[in-house]
Amino acid sequence: MLILGLDPSLSCTGWGVVRAEGSRLAHVANGQIPTDAKAPMAERLAHLQSALAEVIAAHRPDRAAAEEVFVNKNPQSTLKLAQARGAVLAACGAAGIAVNEHAARLVKKAVVGTGAAEKAQVQAMLKVLLPGARIAGADAVDALAVAIADAHLAPRDRADKTAR
Amino acid sequence: MLILGLDPSLSCTGWGVVRAEGSRLAHVANGQIPTDAKAPMAERLAHLQSALAEVIAAHRPDRAAAEEVFVNKNPQSTLKLAQARGAVLAACGAAGIAVNEHAARLVKKAVVGTGAAEKAQVQAMLKVLLPGARIAGADAVDALAVAIADAHLAPRDRADKTAR
Repeated sequence: MLILGLDPSLSCTGWGVVRAEGSRLAHVANGQIPTDAKAPMAERLAHLQSALAEVIAAHRPDRAAAEEVFVNKNPQSTLKLAQARGAVLAACGAAGIAVNEHAARLVKKAVVGTGAAEKAQVQAMLKVLLPGARIAGADAVDALAVAIADAHLAPRDRADKTAR
Repeated sequence: MLILGLDPSLSCTGWGVVRAEGSRLAHVANGQIPTDAKAPMAERLAHLQSALAEVIAAHRPDRAAAEEVFVNKNPQSTLKLAQARGAVLAACGAAGIAVNEHAARLVKKAVVGTGAAEKAQVQAMLKVLLPGARIAGADAVDALAVAIADAHLAPRDRADKTAR
């Protein structure tokens, strides 16, 4: 079972693919898709989407997972994030891949053991869980974390919740 | 100059194409893209996008326009709207079409003459401005209105503002 974890963001979307066989996990690939802050929104979103479509074509994941959206108090930030997320989810939908959603707290709990874990703890646990993986950056860390969480939280290919 | 007006929404995205030659306007086509409320988000967004890509391929607009986002007080509504908008903008970006944004007030002003116009007034003016057009529904009305406004507000193919 190949799981594509996603951390959608307009400025830089993180992705990570893990292989889950029973309780065994292995790192497959990860990366980050930055967009040009000076480009118009439509171009940036199209770039996110086409780059992600390439990732999907290269790795053929069985399913995808993302954190539930954090609704920012700044409506403009929420808007940008949600537009990026819309483009990213549409790329998965176009490839016929279901996207499971997990609460941020449950992702941390699945990876570190506590829902209140710091970013540094998540990163340290990834090194243990996915030995030898070279991780592209902070966005890829978050994407790998949600992929690992999905392997634990939806082990029989049944998600708690598919993004709706 | 062919202008594609868009009214992005997850449940039903409206679109309308008008031809603008100097100050002359003509209706080309309009329609609505509903999505299945029971389907997962990724599927709904992919459907919006592929249907819109077909519209773009059929009519080959020179540019597109949408209203600036209304940031709803309900964060979940804003999230759904913005995700749909992200998928719609990405479809334009993938086709190399710039999307201009106009404030809702300016759209009403351009179509009806007052920024405080009611929906019924916008609809009545469309019948005058685009005689003979059969309009698919309320979402298509809003899409045609923003296309007409764009013809007035960005007459020399220079927008006030490209969506960022």
